[in-house]
Amino acid sequence: MSPRLRIAQVAPLYERVPPALYGGTERIVGYITEELVNRGHHVTLFASGDSETGAKLVAPAPRALRLDAGAQDDLALHLLELARVFEHAREFDVIHCHVGHLAFPFSRLARAPSLHTLHGRLDLPDTFPIFRHFLDEPLVSISHAQRQPFKGLGVTWAGTVYHGIRLDSFPFSPRSGAYLAFLGRISPEKRPDLAIALAKRVGLPLKIAAKVDKVDRVYFEREIEPLLDDPLIEFIGEIGEEAKARFLGEARALVFPNDWPEPFGLVMVEALACGTPVIARSCGSVPEVVVHGRTGFIADSLDEMEDAVKDLDRIDRAECRRDVTERFTVERMVNGYEAIYASLAGQARTA
Amino acid sequence: MSPRLRIAQVAPLYERVPPALYGGTERIVGYITEELVNRGHHVTLFASGDSETGAKLVAPAPRALRLDAGAQDDLALHLLELARVFEHAREFDVIHCHVGHLAFPFSRLARAPSLHTLHGRLDLPDTFPIFRHFLDEPLVSISHAQRQPFKGLGVTWAGTVYHGIRLDSFPFSPRSGAYLAFLGRISPEKRPDLAIALAKRVGLPLKIAAKVDKVDRVYFEREIEPLLDDPLIEFIGEIGEEAKARFLGEARALVFPNDWPEPFGLVMVEALACGTPVIARSCGSVPEVVVHGRTGFIADSLDEMEDAVKDLDRIDRAECRRDVTERFTVERMVNGYEAIYASLAGQARTA
Repeated sequence: MSPRLRIAQVAPLYERVPPALYGGTERIVGYITEELVNRGHHVTLFASGDSETGAKLVAPAPRALRLDAGAQDDLALHLLELARVFEHAREFDVIHCHVGHLAFPFSRLARAPSLHTLHGRLDLPDTFPIFRHFLDEPLVSISHAQRQPFKGLGVTWAGTVYHGIRLDSFPFSPRSGAYLAFLGRISPEKRPDLAIALAKRVGLPLKIAAKVDKVDRVYFEREIEPLLDDPLIEFIGEIGEEAKARFLGEARALVFPNDWPEPFGLVMVEALACGTPVIARSCGSVPEVVVHGRTGFIADSLDEMEDAVKDLDRIDRAECRRDVTERFTVERMVNGYEAIYASLAGQARTA
Repeated sequence: MSPRLRIAQVAPLYERVPPALYGGTERIVGYITEELVNRGHHVTLFASGDSETGAKLVAPAPRALRLDAGAQDDLALHLLELARVFEHAREFDVIHCHVGHLAFPFSRLARAPSLHTLHGRLDLPDTFPIFRHFLDEPLVSISHAQRQPFKGLGVTWAGTVYHGIRLDSFPFSPRSGAYLAFLGRISPEKRPDLAIALAKRVGLPLKIAAKVDKVDRVYFEREIEPLLDDPLIEFIGEIGEEAKARFLGEARALVFPNDWPEPFGLVMVEALACGTPVIARSCGSVPEVVVHGRTGFIADSLDEMEDAVKDLDRIDRAECRRDVTERFTVERMVNGYEAIYASLAGQARTA
């Protein structure tokens, strides 16, 4: 049995933990936190004040920022959060940050045993100088593909830990449904237009459950809304977790036509857990998550995606569920993090 | 004689030091830095790599960010800058920051003797939580009025130090000119519309030397450009320092109709140094800078501003110059900072 540790989890403040609706990072932080509490660790969660947790909650902002119209200085609140974490660094055996490079200088100045899970894409050269300055900060990638842009930079990888989900939140649906599903965020790089084109081509209904951020409003109105006027296409909007499990479970396949270096792609795992295969383009983490021909298909062009839809009967829904059970559970994810914590806390003790 | 100190000056990276054109904060950091070098201190300037200084320059960014189209992650570069400052905190007797609350957590975690000159407006409640968390960080206001929104917050004021200018950069112009001058930035709160209305009302030419930021482009095109089509009004655009001294010195008065809590208002001092009186609304620092009836007029309404123009002959241009000589020189400003540095460095030694 691993020793009980005093662990800080540092979440972004944009969504509550767990998030009400959309919010991949905060959802994962919530999963990790509750599982660590279940395993007997002493966990302090730094997150927005409307979060719900079995850990001790420290809230630098009363409400999640995305839904709090009054809050405007996001940076000030995150600085405040990190100050509150690292001024008490000695009270923790390990500090697990989910807020990106903003935490690096705090971690170094406080000489605290920290690790940083990188939740976003890393192909942003403007951020390279800061990563280069903090080469000794232990980083965790959420897929092997995510690391690719950092080749040769010399950063310190503490490991790759795939995201995991709670299996009971995504019950298995043995019977295949009649529609294709698109779930996530409407934005040019998520390529909802391609999902729509596929549905029209194969003559299957497509249901789109997605939020539209302010920044993507113009794209939605100009490029996507005109495509929705078709009996095959149904736009549902943003949905909560319970509705999501049903939405995914009752689908024939999840279409995931992303055009960007996806760092992980949690929704693929959520669909697979319900038994729903995934048709995805081979961007970023996709080939690590989808086992081509077994839990779905990697298909880059519209032609390939059409072939994939025709081949869906070859996929065993039970096999999709089983793969998640083996590779993408919260338990497995937390096993991964516990191993890293133990090594960091051990280093700190012997330093 | 005060002892020689090892001093870090931490400038924003938006403009070079000194700035090519607009850039109040970077200009002041440049003045302080060069004067401290002249006085024999060991000064390290943290600023963009295109800066020019007699101090040792450490540059976290090769070029000033405002003029560098390629740079996008301003925050990452400022974090990098602060990391490079505070990881070497022990090499300095005092660290003088000009980058606002971003520096607070660094300063506290490094336990470094620092002070923070606040260059902006402080009436932004979203930032109050971070100021409240860092009540022990020594702050310097640039006018007494600037402190007003912080009443009751309990922050630590190390002093008020008025900005100062180099008198030789703004030569005295004994003869009054024929036009009103507006200088700065086109934005709603600077009220260029009011300056234009005043010029039309009193029948004097108005010359506008101002930059238009991207964020103010729509305001400029919708609200201001239509007003420029008048033989009395001339729009010059952004000008450099030498052109500025001539532009201000040859004016009959500087019109400064700001509608916001001006933290200092350097351009008022620059005009006064040339002998040019100031007509300004009583916002923020204005009553501390303009001596009503002696170096200009505080006038809030268009009627009052019209009266002020009529009374301009009562102002002695030599008196305007003299007031700057006594209250707003670089030497006087640096005397103020040296006193604060000595007290902080002394505290650090006895701590």
